[in-house]
Amino acid sequence: MKALYFDGKLKLKDLPKPEIEEGESLIKVLLASVCNTDIEIMKGYKNFKGVLGHEFVGIVEDSSNPQLIGKRVVADINIACGECDLCKEGLFHHCRNRKVLGIFEKDGAFAEYITLPNRNLFIVPDSIKDEEAVFTEPLAAALEILEMYHIKPTDKVVVIGDGKLSQFITQVVALTGCDLYVVGKHEEKLEHLKNKANTLLLEEVERLETKSVFDVAIECTGNEDGLKLAQQLVKPTGTVILKSTYNAYATLNPTDWVVNEIKLIGTRCGPMASALRLLEKRFVTTDYLISGFYKLEQYEEAFSPKNTFKAVFDLRG
Amino acid sequence: MKALYFDGKLKLKDLPKPEIEEGESLIKVLLASVCNTDIEIMKGYKNFKGVLGHEFVGIVEDSSNPQLIGKRVVADINIACGECDLCKEGLFHHCRNRKVLGIFEKDGAFAEYITLPNRNLFIVPDSIKDEEAVFTEPLAAALEILEMYHIKPTDKVVVIGDGKLSQFITQVVALTGCDLYVVGKHEEKLEHLKNKANTLLLEEVERLETKSVFDVAIECTGNEDGLKLAQQLVKPTGTVILKSTYNAYATLNPTDWVVNEIKLIGTRCGPMASALRLLEKRFVTTDYLISGFYKLEQYEEAFSPKNTFKAVFDLRG
Ligand SMILES: [Zn+2]
Ligand SMILES: [Zn+2]
Ligand SMILES: [Zn+2]
Ligand SMILES: [Zn+2]
Repeated sequence: MKALYFDGKLKLKDLPKPEIEEGESLIKVLLASVCNTDIEIMKGYKNFKGVLGHEFVGIVEDSSNPQLIGKRVVADINIACGECDLCKEGLFHHCRNRKVLGIFEKDGAFAEYITLPNRNLFIVPDSIKDEEAVFTEPLAAALEILEMYHIKPTDKVVVIGDGKLSQFITQVVALTGCDLYVVGKHEEKLEHLKNKANTLLLEEVERLETKSVFDVAIECTGNEDGLKLAQQLVKPTGTVILKSTYNAYATLNPTDWVVNEIKLIGTRCGPMASALRLLEKRFVTTDYLISGFYKLEQYEEAFSPKNTFKAVFDLRG
Repeated sequence: MKALYFDGKLKLKDLPKPEIEEGESLIKVLLASVCNTDIEIMKGYKNFKGVLGHEFVGIVEDSSNPQLIGKRVVADINIACGECDLCKEGLFHHCRNRKVLGIFEKDGAFAEYITLPNRNLFIVPDSIKDEEAVFTEPLAAALEILEMYHIKPTDKVVVIGDGKLSQFITQVVALTGCDLYVVGKHEEKLEHLKNKANTLLLEEVERLETKSVFDVAIECTGNEDGLKLAQQLVKPTGTVILKSTYNAYATLNPTDWVVNEIKLIGTRCGPMASALRLLEKRFVTTDYLISGFYKLEQYEEAFSPKNTFKAVFDLRG
């Protein structure tokens, strides 16, 4: 089968079709989308070697559970051991022996076929199109913010960044009814969020006299400046939520967190079933996030920065 | 009156006795203790110029409220404006125009007399000795951890550091019934906490194979290594609580917080009335924390590192 393999350099390879073990399914990939994490991996994050890709929708072609065969599925990307102390507490996303699809010790979805444990699979309702379902995983990751922290309808919240991560997060956080702002550098990206939030260009924020007025700031730029702006924008006793993984240290001042009693909360993967419910109920719009469809062979184009939002590999052939 | 004045250098000065305004009291200081923050100020923290000292017990000598005269009092050190947006929300400790006793724009308690707004004063019950009451402020600061974060009786908690801050915090956190550990470098300081917590020398922790097993880690060393150890010791989804103010940046890896869904919480000043209740009920022991009594004239000795825990200025004459 064809697959995009990374071992310091990305290349199209012909690999053997994977085989399932007990408790697993073989999935034929329909669509798979490119995430910033893929780009970070190509810069060295996690030292991953293998097939990239963790956002996908596919069809179960073979399974140890016959009821799954023929079903359209998405998947939780964390493959847990089920037996360590953290698994026993139900913290499967943090399993001490976990593999992560296309990120850590498990070949990913930029391939014709993948295997996954049946317990990682979520059946996609018929009313959700492939082009929507492919984004279930990043949507769940956005929802993890609401899983880990109680954003109140009366909170004043700011999302920092206007890229693809911010597009999912802003849509999800808007559902709380909070007084929502998004700060970005690109008028054309902010445009898509104007019906969900108050949008602000970075230079407008820099001109504000009193900045520290937000209950919650959500950092999704993935750089140190974004995190520093988040700290400036939250009021004393406020909360900074971190979302991006990036391969870098930041120089920060913990005394500022102590004096202003700031909370910082890291959040990662989220609840897939909840994300499917939001898609099914049409509470979020994801189709505008597809910047282009590509064949696996066109990977250089797919990874080029000309894709404003999401490049999607289409394997429906 | 005599006072310890700092303007880049600490010196004993003869200053005019301060005068009260409407809503204020004049307090004759009985005891005042030295805090790490005083030492940080002398290294440049906050660029403070004025009389140092914010931990004290005193007697009201004059007041705009006659009922306070003759009463023994301790005080909340944050002097709020009462009118800014944060004061209107009740966040007086974070008032945008606040002064802080002996720390920011307000002369402190290493002096014969101080003035404070009446609303900052808390009357000390007779059963609490001066030698205990002087520590109400740092005890309240320790309690702020429990005010800001719910430590559960079933949580596994580690305090990092064995200095004075840790001594207060360990005692207070032990009251939750949690499974409590303290990590330090000094056997003789840890000795005082053996009846409150499991004590561990730093080298014992470094030998552990699996470190990330704590629900909560409380950093009170005030240095970057302490914060890094805290991050190592909490398990995924765990919470790091920061307590110390120090004049330094730290090089940290926010991706680790995101991947492991770590929370970081800064906490500062706490509830004085609650601290007095704990002292009155004998739930905490503070007398062993006095390493020496000094006259104001003996400030060099009082600030010397030979004081294992707290140096106390005694002005009872
Ligand atoms: Zn991703
Ligand atoms: Zn596990
Ligand atoms: Zn202090
Ligand atoms: Zn105020």
